[in-house]
Amino acid sequence: MNGYRIAVIPGDGIGGEVVPAGIEALEATAGRFGLRLEFTDFGFASAGYWQRHGTMLPADWEATLRGFDAIFFGAVGWPEVVPDHISLWGSLLQFRRTFDQYVNLRPCRLMPGVRGPLAGREPGDIDFLVVRENTEGEYSSVGGRIFEGTERETVLQETVMTRIGVDRVLKYAFEQAERRPGRHLTSATKSNGIAISMPYWDERFAAMSERFPDVRVDRFHIDALAAQFVLHPDWFDVVVASNLFGDILSDLGPACTGTLGIAPSANINPDRLHPSLFEPVHGSAPDIAGQGIANPIGQIWCGSMMLDHLGHPEAAAHLLGAIEDVLAYGPGGAPLTPDLHGTGTTVELGRAVAERV
Amino acid sequence: MNGYRIAVIPGDGIGGEVVPAGIEALEATAGRFGLRLEFTDFGFASAGYWQRHGTMLPADWEATLRGFDAIFFGAVGWPEVVPDHISLWGSLLQFRRTFDQYVNLRPCRLMPGVRGPLAGREPGDIDFLVVRENTEGEYSSVGGRIFEGTERETVLQETVMTRIGVDRVLKYAFEQAERRPGRHLTSATKSNGIAISMPYWDERFAAMSERFPDVRVDRFHIDALAAQFVLHPDWFDVVVASNLFGDILSDLGPACTGTLGIAPSANINPDRLHPSLFEPVHGSAPDIAGQGIANPIGQIWCGSMMLDHLGHPEAAAHLLGAIEDVLAYGPGGAPLTPDLHGTGTTVELGRAVAERV
Ligand SMILES: CC(C)[C@H](C(=O)O)[C@@H](O)C(=O)O
Ligand SMILES: CC(C)[C@H](C(=O)O)[C@@H](O)C(=O)O
Repeated sequence: MNGYRIAVIPGDGIGGEVVPAGIEALEATAGRFGLRLEFTDFGFASAGYWQRHGTMLPADWEATLRGFDAIFFGAVGWPEVVPDHISLWGSLLQFRRTFDQYVNLRPCRLMPGVRGPLAGREPGDIDFLVVRENTEGEYSSVGGRIFEGTERETVLQETVMTRIGVDRVLKYAFEQAERRPGRHLTSATKSNGIAISMPYWDERFAAMSERFPDVRVDRFHIDALAAQFVLHPDWFDVVVASNLFGDILSDLGPACTGTLGIAPSANINPDRLHPSLFEPVHGSAPDIAGQGIANPIGQIWCGSMMLDHLGHPEAAAHLLGAIEDVLAYGPGGAPLTPDLHGTGTTVELGRAVAERV
Repeated sequence: MNGYRIAVIPGDGIGGEVVPAGIEALEATAGRFGLRLEFTDFGFASAGYWQRHGTMLPADWEATLRGFDAIFFGAVGWPEVVPDHISLWGSLLQFRRTFDQYVNLRPCRLMPGVRGPLAGREPGDIDFLVVRENTEGEYSSVGGRIFEGTERETVLQETVMTRIGVDRVLKYAFEQAERRPGRHLTSATKSNGIAISMPYWDERFAAMSERFPDVRVDRFHIDALAAQFVLHPDWFDVVVASNLFGDILSDLGPACTGTLGIAPSANINPDRLHPSLFEPVHGSAPDIAGQGIANPIGQIWCGSMMLDHLGHPEAAAHLLGAIEDVLAYGPGGAPLTPDLHGTGTTVELGRAVAERV
């Protein structure tokens, strides 16, 4: 029961550089906690694959990946070769929908040794989790244009929410809040402006909260919530949001903690009917790819989230602790990469974390 | 040509306290620049009016206000008496649509003497303008529910964009960018996720930019843009956005400059077929209403925007300069209100600005 098969997809750019560092740290952690992780590499979901085959994925990708316990993903996107809307919708967004990864999880945490943009905040002050709906809502291709090319031209874009889709992500968010000491869940809404879908979201949130009497709840309109992420990030514990609002908050949150370059994200199918996918937020970073200086912390942190998802919260916490210990050496201390004002390489920083484990 | 009729609507809570301070500063400025401002007070669009009449506005409100050159608005909202969705949709959002105030303008500016949340930023570093579409887009009541109360329950919410609606706000934003030294316009999009409306917005933006070759343009997805407001607010000059994205950015921007409590907003009908409305962002603030300590700077700053809109940019700049001079005294100096760590009252701070003019 402690053996897992992990599909590894490095993807593009620095993906291929940070993924090995992530694996090294995972293997060290697995060794310590008696877990067996078996990694299998795949070259698809990359610009290189697209150049050779004209598609991002092989025809049998779904059958190929379905047998794995998780997907450890680097980054996709190489605009010089393939336009982003093709590479993203042809891989990542495809995975989310096909594998029904209906939760997108992003921890926002002020880390030791990382300079954030907010004045006067210390590690420990900010530590919250954004739970984003990941399959429906505002991200839809339903709609169209009428009276094209005339003065009357009108465009309709549908937002689609379903009871099943809304309830399951809310339930997941309440469960996460229940697990944490704060037991506090904030819902992002805009029911004062968006008159149909957002009042529905609020209703389902209120209904679900009755099933979780231990969780303290509140609600912010998305405009005020974005402002409070900057002004009072310490107010939040778990924040649940629709696909679009979650997308915004889960970039804004790590921006506030200065961790956009090292933040992880998890695309989760909580029912475990399909594999979940773990991917750093930073993307393929064409500007520094090939230099061996990309920061591998985001990828390693993804590894920690993956261990948690596989049912090993202690191993996950241990790996996260190792990351924090290494970051805490601060500039000049540990072999931090240039983005953290150090002179270390990807390999050196990754190894430092693995050794710390 | 230098005489203007201004409708004054104090509304609720601190609205009635800060509006007189705004008028005092406006009168001082008008005196200096040879303008005649005639103010007429109205009691509607308030909880008190609602208690007496059961509506937010009199039946003839449109005819009553139509003859004015501008509306100088305090704040609306008093949830203990009337639910927000009634007070807002029954007044402010009504004005926006009926008077076709299709632009919402919000300056984001680091002010001297105001402590912001971002580390290491000085006045002058941050000074940008958010131009928000104010009548269509994501704010719509078109849509509905089907299969109610069942597992299949599905909610559809329409976003509606029109060529007329999109083009006119883009044109206004380009004109604003042309007026400013930076000549730089950023468009907020999310065409990588929202597949119908946002690509349309991008297309119209690209088309409009051909008519303004002097304006440098760029485009950010809303998630990345929200993050950059925190990380690099100095990158921006004018930012144009749809109704929802503009709503978010125009709270987030002032949060980043620490000016949420003193920020102005303008709801503008650029064609001058209808009166425009000037209103501070802060709202009615029930918690401090009645104490005479509300900060009147937002209301006075609204006065500056109103003068600009009426065609007097020099008077507007002079009034804004007076605000900055008074704020620059810093805590302990000028009679700043408690929110700015002073011990002054609304009247004292307002008077200081008026005298400085
Ligand atoms: C009260 C609300 C409907 C309104 C809006 O979203 O437009 C407010 O947030 C604003 O920005 O003026
Ligand atoms: C690339 C884009 C479509 C995607 C999203 O908006 O979901 C990204 O921003 C993310 O958050 O993973």
